[in-house]
Amino acid sequence: MNSNPVGFQGEIGSYSEEAVGKYFRGKASTVPHKTLHDLFQALENNEIEQALAPIENSLEGSVTETYDLLLRSTVKVNGEMILRIVHSLIGHHGVRKEDIRTVYSHPQALAQCRRYLRVLGVETIAAYDTAGSVKMVKERNARDSAAIASRAAAETYDMDVIEEGIADEESNYTRFFLLSMREVEPTGEDKTSIIFSASHVPGSLYRTLEDFANRGINLTKIESRPTRQKPWEYFFFLDFEGHKDDKNCREVLETISKRTDFLKIIGSYPRVKEKV
Amino acid sequence: MNSNPVGFQGEIGSYSEEAVGKYFRGKASTVPHKTLHDLFQALENNEIEQALAPIENSLEGSVTETYDLLLRSTVKVNGEMILRIVHSLIGHHGVRKEDIRTVYSHPQALAQCRRYLRVLGVETIAAYDTAGSVKMVKERNARDSAAIASRAAAETYDMDVIEEGIADEESNYTRFFLLSMREVEPTGEDKTSIIFSASHVPGSLYRTLEDFANRGINLTKIESRPTRQKPWEYFFFLDFEGHKDDKNCREVLETISKRTDFLKIIGSYPRVKEKV
Repeated sequence: MNSNPVGFQGEIGSYSEEAVGKYFRGKASTVPHKTLHDLFQALENNEIEQALAPIENSLEGSVTETYDLLLRSTVKVNGEMILRIVHSLIGHHGVRKEDIRTVYSHPQALAQCRRYLRVLGVETIAAYDTAGSVKMVKERNARDSAAIASRAAAETYDMDVIEEGIADEESNYTRFFLLSMREVEPTGEDKTSIIFSASHVPGSLYRTLEDFANRGINLTKIESRPTRQKPWEYFFFLDFEGHKDDKNCREVLETISKRTDFLKIIGSYPRVKEKV
Repeated sequence: MNSNPVGFQGEIGSYSEEAVGKYFRGKASTVPHKTLHDLFQALENNEIEQALAPIENSLEGSVTETYDLLLRSTVKVNGEMILRIVHSLIGHHGVRKEDIRTVYSHPQALAQCRRYLRVLGVETIAAYDTAGSVKMVKERNARDSAAIASRAAAETYDMDVIEEGIADEESNYTRFFLLSMREVEPTGEDKTSIIFSASHVPGSLYRTLEDFANRGINLTKIESRPTRQKPWEYFFFLDFEGHKDDKNCREVLETISKRTDFLKIIGSYPRVKEKV
């Protein structure tokens, strides 16, 4: 067992806790944090050495709160991992599907099971966490209610999986970042994540992409977020293949830094082969 | 009064309803819809002729649900407008700030008033709508609770504004799209919004931006959303200056359509001067 527990956001039994288990192959203990903001603070205050935070879902898109925290924090990205999300309908022991009147879950989980819930003909109520919904249905002893969450959440709260794999689209994956206050060495199969400001979208974004294209560096993700300082000005988050200490990556980063007011390297880390 | 009511999402008294009032200078009646999905369906079924939907906030970024609906729907963008968001602390008549123990609101509104709420030392509970929170505090007759919403919401539910302008950052604006099933004529001061697929991010995005740069067409916004068909492939949403029937815009759209599998023009519309 790793003596330093790994932080995650959410309740015990959440998909994020499942991600920690998968990343460390069961060899790490976990510490829950109420919000992503708390999770980043625990890293910065050295209360925890490592944490796993969701960055992107294949159906819903970017987790914008994580992006905003990466912008403001000195936390570094040390790795990435991909978790397949499998939603289950979870209720009290012995409850049948036909008895369910109300289903609680995170709005994204409810949205991902929309067709299933329509056929079931239940009322849906949005809650703030998938595992937290299971906990709530348990504590309220509500036998006509169910929650949508992972099988792990059902086991955590000693509840029944009434039906597994209820999402409308099976191809549902969440990408997580492993975070710490340190940097990691090149492995030869890396990715780098950066943030830069582009006050004039047409010029600076186009020229930055040109810098990568000219060096044959593969971009894997681009995301924009408001600067919050001036309305309708944006930061761009780029992921590209290579380590910041590789020659061509070092060159492109130097070129960009000369042109932009703001460039932040949030980490170079071993990339996962995304066979999904 | 406009005889055809304009649709919006949320409860009566929401910021979206306020936006309708501002856009039509008080000359339109309004119809609330529970979800953005319902709002788009009402347009497609010709139950309403026009609707206003939020697309982007200057602090929180894009309203991804609106982007996803624009991708799937045949609804067209006919206009844009910008509403300044001013949050108020709202409670029962005669309640003092010191009596408040719990504050309800949409999580974005709670986040935008974080420092204020910390000083106030209250518990915060996330709800699904700002105006809906006022309604709930009213109906529960909870005199130790308050909600964060607009002054209009306080007036709608006959509640008191305890304090106005409580957000941590004053520069808070939401951009809305006016939607209908029709297209609008060029005015000479227009913007166009398009969606295209970029299965290979480095190549096709870079070349598309090059097409705009070469013609001197100003891009004002770029946003990516997952295709949902294949993990880690994206649609790009672009806003640029000009009308789709302008010569240089027509040319760039023809060029892009030859290269990409998917190009959708979601509308050309009069642009607002964004003096904020």
